[in-house]
Amino acid sequence: MLRLDIHAIDGAARAGEMTTRHGRVATPAFMPVGTHGSVKGLSVDDLIVTGSDCILGNTYHLYLRPGHELISRHGGLPAYTGWKRPMLTDSGGYQVFSLRDIAQIDDDGVTFQSHLDGSTHRFTPERVIEIQHALSPSIIMAFDECSPYPCERVNAEIAVNRTSHWLSRCVAEHARQLTDADTGPALFGIVQGSILADLRERSAAEVTDYDLPGFAIGGLSVGEPVEVMEEMLAVTTPLLPEDRPRYLMGVGYPDNLVMAVGYGIDMFDCVLPTRSARTGLVFTSTGPLVYRNAEYADDDRPLDPDCDCRVCQLHSRAYLRHLYKQNEITGIVLATYHNVWFYQDLMRQIRGAITAHEFTRFATEFLSTYRSGEQR
Amino acid sequence: MLRLDIHAIDGAARAGEMTTRHGRVATPAFMPVGTHGSVKGLSVDDLIVTGSDCILGNTYHLYLRPGHELISRHGGLPAYTGWKRPMLTDSGGYQVFSLRDIAQIDDDGVTFQSHLDGSTHRFTPERVIEIQHALSPSIIMAFDECSPYPCERVNAEIAVNRTSHWLSRCVAEHARQLTDADTGPALFGIVQGSILADLRERSAAEVTDYDLPGFAIGGLSVGEPVEVMEEMLAVTTPLLPEDRPRYLMGVGYPDNLVMAVGYGIDMFDCVLPTRSARTGLVFTSTGPLVYRNAEYADDDRPLDPDCDCRVCQLHSRAYLRHLYKQNEITGIVLATYHNVWFYQDLMRQIRGAITAHEFTRFATEFLSTYRSGEQR
Repeated sequence: MLRLDIHAIDGAARAGEMTTRHGRVATPAFMPVGTHGSVKGLSVDDLIVTGSDCILGNTYHLYLRPGHELISRHGGLPAYTGWKRPMLTDSGGYQVFSLRDIAQIDDDGVTFQSHLDGSTHRFTPERVIEIQHALSPSIIMAFDECSPYPCERVNAEIAVNRTSHWLSRCVAEHARQLTDADTGPALFGIVQGSILADLRERSAAEVTDYDLPGFAIGGLSVGEPVEVMEEMLAVTTPLLPEDRPRYLMGVGYPDNLVMAVGYGIDMFDCVLPTRSARTGLVFTSTGPLVYRNAEYADDDRPLDPDCDCRVCQLHSRAYLRHLYKQNEITGIVLATYHNVWFYQDLMRQIRGAITAHEFTRFATEFLSTYRSGEQR
Repeated sequence: MLRLDIHAIDGAARAGEMTTRHGRVATPAFMPVGTHGSVKGLSVDDLIVTGSDCILGNTYHLYLRPGHELISRHGGLPAYTGWKRPMLTDSGGYQVFSLRDIAQIDDDGVTFQSHLDGSTHRFTPERVIEIQHALSPSIIMAFDECSPYPCERVNAEIAVNRTSHWLSRCVAEHARQLTDADTGPALFGIVQGSILADLRERSAAEVTDYDLPGFAIGGLSVGEPVEVMEEMLAVTTPLLPEDRPRYLMGVGYPDNLVMAVGYGIDMFDCVLPTRSARTGLVFTSTGPLVYRNAEYADDDRPLDPDCDCRVCQLHSRAYLRHLYKQNEITGIVLATYHNVWFYQDLMRQIRGAITAHEFTRFATEFLSTYRSGEQR
């Protein structure tokens, strides 16, 4: 089961609440990524405090280790991970197709080698839906073919065709797996089409032909210029049903989240806040800050003087930089917490601005400050 | 300033409260080790919730990186680390002497090479006190010579002599550094003497000749059998003033903490709970559990079914083992939290048992269960 209640509309932007079988998600929502079943460095309590209503798990990784059958034996991801709130699993398609050199794709599915031990595996639409049902999150994703960037038209067309064909098989398998629609996971379809407007339009039409509780835009943020991503959003988003959540997969940078909300996107996921923290970068209201740099060794300001998170209340750039240089786990934990807080605080501000019908002004002011790079 | 108020005595065991310039510490106390100024994997909030009243920082490491002068500019360790509660720094002696191959010891001090870049440094009693005053914790330690194990008598005697001589210089330098005794750090002396009872007795006599607010027993838990450590405690502890805290440095395993409390020890520190978590081992009421082992891959019990910590309330051995195998930071964070909680919960039980005058019974029961190795 899944339902979207829209509480406010401002231009194309919408603010509301998505109700899943594991609880509610305020939208627009950002989902931190928990690839192996944990958001790297954060506890369940940390995630809750940051305001992360929903997290994402990667089917490809969880299928390989510890295995969907083991997770199923332990009651699915909510019981196995201790995260008993909304969770979404991707279809594994993105990971499998990023293994192009060691994956063989045909119209029926994909055969690939594990990046862990080289063992051979096969994903078909039916298999991927079966695996996700075993993982038992709140939302599962259809198995799609994600085109790389750049991509020739002929290949982008094949991917759109396969994505539509596979969706029909995913929907059928999902119906077979569902014992009780009210308590089962919700299946989202995915629009592909690379950066070709007409293909995006056709894919959107074919995918939304199914009465699904939510729809995603895949195959963006894969290397194309942001202006091209924005063009595709402008073309695709209006074609997705207004009363269903719209999920922009794998996006992204804070300024891109703000931009995409303006086109009517409700959900995002990205590894950026977590991965960046581990490489020495934090996000702040005045733009990214490479806190590992020597210039911060003696800087007693918080990571972001405008941030209310507990890391910024307690710790200086100098301390975080020191911990990073000494490979102290705590440094990564604290920077990750700040980044996830920063993203969730941005989403709170976005929701507030939409509710107040001030989203355009908010977006202009946020982007102006964010892109100024001026440190306070 | 530092004061010990003893609230209950049961045999030689004592329970009470130590008041430092940064707050109170319930005793007997276990201090987690924050080598570089953070307890690896734990936030300040985590430490508080586990009941860690006091943590330890390593002078040697902090002197090298980020440097005591930088920390001093940032207001000392409390402001620099965000841990504004009681903290103790060691003297650096233990680290410097463990570099024996690249350290030259003489009666005036030690010249050593940094393990980071090979640069040459010199620690003298005066220098170590000056550095610790710059770090500005609640408790600082005298510069001592820690004998290795095994150690020839002649060398152990030299170490005792140097420790006594250096203590006089530490006391003098401490007086010079102290601008206001009420707000400055408290200096503890350290008893050495290897595993030779008469040397321990002489060292205790010479060290307690100074009117210091606390005394430590150093040079144990360096490889000697636990029975020998216990003999040394039996000889040394009664020679330390009853009204001052007694600190057994670098100890240790849970069963050794219980044993040492029985001889009248009030303070402990050890890397075991934090380091073990990172190598795949947790402590439980029925003994150590190597949670990284394959036998726990499908075990849905908590790390310790008798533990009240939030990790044991929420997560299984199977999940922790999975995270460990996937090198997920969160796994180490959770295991570290459990271990520090386990240690602090043991200290709470110890304090409660002493207060109830049931320490002997508690110790017998705890050790019987802990050494049973029976999993529940």
